[in-house]
Amino acid sequence: MIAGMLAAAAAGNAVTKADFRAALPDVRLGLLNAQFDLAETDVPVVVIIAGDDRVGANGLVNRLNEWLDSRYLDTEVFTGDTDADRARPSAWRLWRALPPRGRMALWVGGLMRVVRATVAGEVTEADMQRWATHLRRTQRMWLADGALVLKFFVHTPADVQKKRLKKARKKGADAWRYDERDWTLAGDLDDAIPMIERALRETSVPGAPWTIIEGTDERYRDLSVAQSILAAVTARLAAPSGTQPGVPDAPYVDPDQAASVLAHVDLDRSVDKATYRRRLSAAQGELHRLADEARRRDVATILAFEGWDAGGKGGAIRRITQALEAGDYRVHAVAAPTAQERAHHYLWRFWRDVPRDGRIAIYDRTWYGRVLVERVEGFAAPAEWQRAYDEILDFEEQLTEHGAVLAKFWLHISADEQLARFRAREDTAYKRHKITEEDYRNREKWDDYVTAVDQMVVRTSTATAPWHIISGNDKRNARLEVLDAVVEGLTRALA
Amino acid sequence: MIAGMLAAAAAGNAVTKADFRAALPDVRLGLLNAQFDLAETDVPVVVIIAGDDRVGANGLVNRLNEWLDSRYLDTEVFTGDTDADRARPSAWRLWRALPPRGRMALWVGGLMRVVRATVAGEVTEADMQRWATHLRRTQRMWLADGALVLKFFVHTPADVQKKRLKKARKKGADAWRYDERDWTLAGDLDDAIPMIERALRETSVPGAPWTIIEGTDERYRDLSVAQSILAAVTARLAAPSGTQPGVPDAPYVDPDQAASVLAHVDLDRSVDKATYRRRLSAAQGELHRLADEARRRDVATILAFEGWDAGGKGGAIRRITQALEAGDYRVHAVAAPTAQERAHHYLWRFWRDVPRDGRIAIYDRTWYGRVLVERVEGFAAPAEWQRAYDEILDFEEQLTEHGAVLAKFWLHISADEQLARFRAREDTAYKRHKITEEDYRNREKWDDYVTAVDQMVVRTSTATAPWHIISGNDKRNARLEVLDAVVEGLTRALA
Repeated sequence: MIAGMLAAAAAGNAVTKADFRAALPDVRLGLLNAQFDLAETDVPVVVIIAGDDRVGANGLVNRLNEWLDSRYLDTEVFTGDTDADRARPSAWRLWRALPPRGRMALWVGGLMRVVRATVAGEVTEADMQRWATHLRRTQRMWLADGALVLKFFVHTPADVQKKRLKKARKKGADAWRYDERDWTLAGDLDDAIPMIERALRETSVPGAPWTIIEGTDERYRDLSVAQSILAAVTARLAAPSGTQPGVPDAPYVDPDQAASVLAHVDLDRSVDKATYRRRLSAAQGELHRLADEARRRDVATILAFEGWDAGGKGGAIRRITQALEAGDYRVHAVAAPTAQERAHHYLWRFWRDVPRDGRIAIYDRTWYGRVLVERVEGFAAPAEWQRAYDEILDFEEQLTEHGAVLAKFWLHISADEQLARFRAREDTAYKRHKITEEDYRNREKWDDYVTAVDQMVVRTSTATAPWHIISGNDKRNARLEVLDAVVEGLTRALA
Repeated sequence: MIAGMLAAAAAGNAVTKADFRAALPDVRLGLLNAQFDLAETDVPVVVIIAGDDRVGANGLVNRLNEWLDSRYLDTEVFTGDTDADRARPSAWRLWRALPPRGRMALWVGGLMRVVRATVAGEVTEADMQRWATHLRRTQRMWLADGALVLKFFVHTPADVQKKRLKKARKKGADAWRYDERDWTLAGDLDDAIPMIERALRETSVPGAPWTIIEGTDERYRDLSVAQSILAAVTARLAAPSGTQPGVPDAPYVDPDQAASVLAHVDLDRSVDKATYRRRLSAAQGELHRLADEARRRDVATILAFEGWDAGGKGGAIRRITQALEAGDYRVHAVAAPTAQERAHHYLWRFWRDVPRDGRIAIYDRTWYGRVLVERVEGFAAPAEWQRAYDEILDFEEQLTEHGAVLAKFWLHISADEQLARFRAREDTAYKRHKITEEDYRNREKWDDYVTAVDQMVVRTSTATAPWHIISGNDKRNARLEVLDAVVEGLTRALA
């Protein structure tokens, strides 16, 4: 399973009618109180809604207008350029709509128009980049001035949108909501996704990231956005004046986490021994050939492994290195930082070990520790791990821009399988050192890790540096999935 | 006098031998103590030296190595790409050289190589922009992590460099310091200046601006950089842990401010009445024609006026509007912000009044109030006005990218002339309302304003939005200088 940012967010989130009804009174009262309290502060709040699901984003905006007190809310829909807009720099309309301190504004649209124009070639890449640069700087300015900026992108998979359209056309009831635009949009959506993800990445700034909201279920869509707004405003109202607390940017996740990225991995996949041997040998042979070519063509390869304890990282890595020339690769086992490493920025040790062109670096645990163990264990403050998503994306962008192939793996197993493996390790003399009390303690934080992994995958899956979520309960299956992904990544890069 | 960033910094700064000797013991002891105290903190310090004056930058680095304790200083010269460098993303060498917390590193080079390669067409604009983007993000990351980043750019005018080279060649004594590179550099310098200024602008981030150091006088060069480093490290050591105090980014200015931008304005320029009438009429006619063409071609014009009280802004503005059609322009008199304006970001009201294509906006006082009156009077905190330089540059960049013509004027007069004008106003019935007690009080802060104007001009003069420093003791001269500059700016834009 390869996850892009948007695909990862589309995990099947849904809220039942009963849960929705139960949650609603608190949310609505909370929002009204928050607006009321906000008026006493010097904090302007900008809530930005965009989405590849036009009708869904509209529905969300209508709902928020219903739940918030519209006397204290300025809704601005940036549909098309007016004559007055075109006659001025593009940020003019944003500044005009900027709410005064103590008020909230709801902004709709904008982003997708730029994406579509870029995909259609009406806007050059350079212009798109300039637009994003100014937008980043503008947001930073507003944040530094004390503003709270909350951004939600409603993503609904193309097939879901098409189904809705067909139904509306057939039944006629909701047909008025849709028009020709929606047919075109849904049809082109899959092609536009890389550019959407890039636009989301390039218009994110620390303190104001995009939260991707799955739009398939309306109740989930509306409730999760409302709860996120409420949490962010509440946190800001509680913070001492003049400080910017970390934005609570985890989207609403339902209590049993049925809709996380990990919940959708089919852990039943398995491979029999004979098939395994055959496919392993073929994949390793192919990998050897590709690594050889990558060396000759000066293409570096970086393989980043994360996963549950006892998830099978080591075994998967060994199946890769078996296929490589000893001089071509290095495996970096990343443990707690040394004193020298602690005296530097957390990315320093990973920069230090960046492989040179033509070489392969394999990381057994990675820079993602910042948003996994350091987040969950509290080693990094919220503001620190929250800004790390952008810092990591920039790090990886520099690697891939330089020409490196980068693939990231999360080795997923079930909690039961992990327990079984821990027990088995204790029974095996040469594996006993791998298991400690701490490993058992970590299991108590399983749910926290599920949330952290979910957000990590959603925030850092890109077209050039995708996350591969590996089905690992069957070790043979896990190893083949990893090998196949490496072979595929190299094949694409060398094509 | 049109000022670019670098030209503005080359104001003729010099330190006498006696002043140098007197200042040195304190600076050297201060630097050694600062290094010592630094070792107890978790702050890494990166001092970056670059310059269009290769020999001068080298001399500065040698001097700093002499004055600092080299046991606690890591000097890294980024001369050329090594094989190992080229095989990795360009930031790799920076990360490798990053000092651990508590240590100071001195970095040399880098920037000018990119500038030269871009000017020579060996690096595309897009690649240059990507390089700058990553550099900005990297600095932000380090700053957020607690680093202190100090950047100095040594600028020595081309003619001074050429004189030095000739002298060295003739006398032979210093000849070994120079080589063919320096001849080429000095020869091409003037052509490269717009790209240098752009690179400086695009690699500045709030909290780590470039300080431009005039390299003509070695004693000034070395002493001002040493004092700036000392001031910044001292401020940082005194700040509560975990906070980032504003960087004291004003370069060293000698007490009598003989070398400020303003000190070099020839205030004796005057124009007789007959010449004035003739030239005024000609310039106004030309302006009328150009304004007409700008309207037809949808080019907006923005004229920003700052200057001393009673400096003649109003009179100069009237000589412009006399030449314009009433429907084409608006004059915005910028006073203390209203309640509504105070409820917004300080740039909001200026964005609100951005003229549409083809129109002319004239600002009598401007957004530069943030770094002038708000700085001097303490209405804005140091961190606020310090980040304003970059915010203003971004605002103006959006205007000029959109196609607007932007010219900025400082109407300069002497303190004596101002006093005479205040007195004259008191004697004229219809001008008496223009003069208050406050105007007299403001005169006490004359020197603070000189410093603020100096830094404003150095930090915000760009090729597309230059500062014009107007010699205003003679009103006729001032009005003609302004009109000529507007005519010239429009002529260039419409060519």
